[in-house]
Amino acid sequence: MLHEVAIQARLAEGAEGVRRILRTVFMAEQIPVRNVAQEVGLPVPVVAAVRGELEKRGILTRKGGVSLTGKGLSVVQSELGLSCRKRFARPGVPPIPVVLKDLCGRFADIAERRPEVDVKLDQSHATPETVLRRAVYLYEHDALEGRNLLVLGDDDLTSVAVGLLAQHLEIVLGQVVVLECDGRLVDFLGVINEREGLPITVIARDLREDIPGDLCGQMDVFFTDPPYTLSGLSLFVSRGASALVPEVGKQGFVSFGRRSPDETVRAIGSLIEMGFAPVEIIPGFNEYVGAQVLGGVSQMIRLISTGKPQPLVTGTYHGALYTADLKRRRQGDRASH
Amino acid sequence: MLHEVAIQARLAEGAEGVRRILRTVFMAEQIPVRNVAQEVGLPVPVVAAVRGELEKRGILTRKGGVSLTGKGLSVVQSELGLSCRKRFARPGVPPIPVVLKDLCGRFADIAERRPEVDVKLDQSHATPETVLRRAVYLYEHDALEGRNLLVLGDDDLTSVAVGLLAQHLEIVLGQVVVLECDGRLVDFLGVINEREGLPITVIARDLREDIPGDLCGQMDVFFTDPPYTLSGLSLFVSRGASALVPEVGKQGFVSFGRRSPDETVRAIGSLIEMGFAPVEIIPGFNEYVGAQVLGGVSQMIRLISTGKPQPLVTGTYHGALYTADLKRRRQGDRASH
Repeated sequence: MLHEVAIQARLAEGAEGVRRILRTVFMAEQIPVRNVAQEVGLPVPVVAAVRGELEKRGILTRKGGVSLTGKGLSVVQSELGLSCRKRFARPGVPPIPVVLKDLCGRFADIAERRPEVDVKLDQSHATPETVLRRAVYLYEHDALEGRNLLVLGDDDLTSVAVGLLAQHLEIVLGQVVVLECDGRLVDFLGVINEREGLPITVIARDLREDIPGDLCGQMDVFFTDPPYTLSGLSLFVSRGASALVPEVGKQGFVSFGRRSPDETVRAIGSLIEMGFAPVEIIPGFNEYVGAQVLGGVSQMIRLISTGKPQPLVTGTYHGALYTADLKRRRQGDRASH
Repeated sequence: MLHEVAIQARLAEGAEGVRRILRTVFMAEQIPVRNVAQEVGLPVPVVAAVRGELEKRGILTRKGGVSLTGKGLSVVQSELGLSCRKRFARPGVPPIPVVLKDLCGRFADIAERRPEVDVKLDQSHATPETVLRRAVYLYEHDALEGRNLLVLGDDDLTSVAVGLLAQHLEIVLGQVVVLECDGRLVDFLGVINEREGLPITVIARDLREDIPGDLCGQMDVFFTDPPYTLSGLSLFVSRGASALVPEVGKQGFVSFGRRSPDETVRAIGSLIEMGFAPVEIIPGFNEYVGAQVLGGVSQMIRLISTGKPQPLVTGTYHGALYTADLKRRRQGDRASH
């Protein structure tokens, strides 16, 4: 039955993915579909498709979001062997430190005035807590004080949180540079940096173009929350690789949504190929405002360079990049067959 | 200066590694060398070598373990640009739940009577808290109830913690099998399982041999804390790959010490090659009893199978496996030149 549902719902996670959804519903008894998605790390529409198949089979019902029918409960108990609803804390991220609550509020006020999300550019705004959490995480890993930091795409305003945290801690940053293709954001960041006195350089740049020559091999750290596509990941991290000082131990921080196992193998494989060692992966680190393609969360991947960064993309990139590009190309493919 | 020290101390982490050590000492003001090692994720002897080089240069002194000299402080401030000693909580593992404290005590009593560490086999005992934390982590990720679980090498007694937790939660495990080459441990586990009524099968097996044929393709989950070497990792995970049901979404849990960036790329690369997607990496998850080669901690790597597990090793393995083998071979190499 699990296999059948996985096939009908085209679930890349297979029967195991269906089982995880059923276990989540079983443990919660009643749960909104969005929370199921977050818990199992799948996009909401994907979970909804599986729910649909399980409803057809009389296993799930919509009572209180999603819940098991009588038949569903007996399937879960007898076929999956599940009986225990106890939950324990999982490894995770600490809450925003109390001493930084005010700072978080200040950041949230700034973030409220930023330009609207442009979905064509795979933008989606991380919550203020998430963005401040990133700044703290960077600080803890020696990625701020005295460091040259490159932010590749910044609709989340991570550079602003970094600047505000540096002010709060009274630390001196190295050269902090943002490369951003969205003119509205470039303007907005410029205004904020001016007003708040943040020593951050914002450059209008489509990352399909190579990074400015004077940044190559100059950075200690890069940060990116790239477009959702695997080519987006590969392109943005390539730009980061080009920017790092070519010696061992430089750092990359990559926020990236949970993927199917196959895609994850390709994604992590591409980081490895570029000469980066993943030393920490935190599944639910980033939370995003509003309903999101990827269930509203993404993982944080901390990378250490091996000293021989090998960008997979150099020069200008001409391929598909954003989710919308891929859809367009796929439709084009279909139309031409 | 950082580069020079890294070269003299043969630090694979390079100048950045030296900087991290200096920052750790700077932040703590006075700190035992062992804690520095834990903090930066390097083996104690490696940190000690760097300390030696920094002492020669008048930057560190042994006051209270390790601390900066006046000259050292000015180097850290002016050359590294560090000024801030504030610390924030990092992402990490939750403490053992209060409801499991008694269970943890029971496990600790059992663990106290186990056979001594055999260093020739790269054994080293995880602390009771660590082993129970593993069992809870497995439970949270649906790796226990109704699941077939293979434990590859078990000097940590992870299978015992799993069995005790299952009793406590009143859940029914699938088939739980331990493959262990150390006859003393096989006997010990047999006695404990009998006495505690744990439904666990322990088989004497050197993992240089392939796993028993009737386990191939049967397991939902494997767990391993393999020998320290990269070939040990690759071999044990290969055995796990052979044991898993060949479909997407099956899980592997691998405890492995922090390595140099180059070795980490090779280690994670080998997991990727075997068709495993790393979905979580938790740096300090495992703590070990006593002074340890790898600074007393190791990371937990959670893997999801892509459904096409491709063990890098099949059949009997004839290469070097344990740290002692590698040393012997290296000495042999030298002797023969």
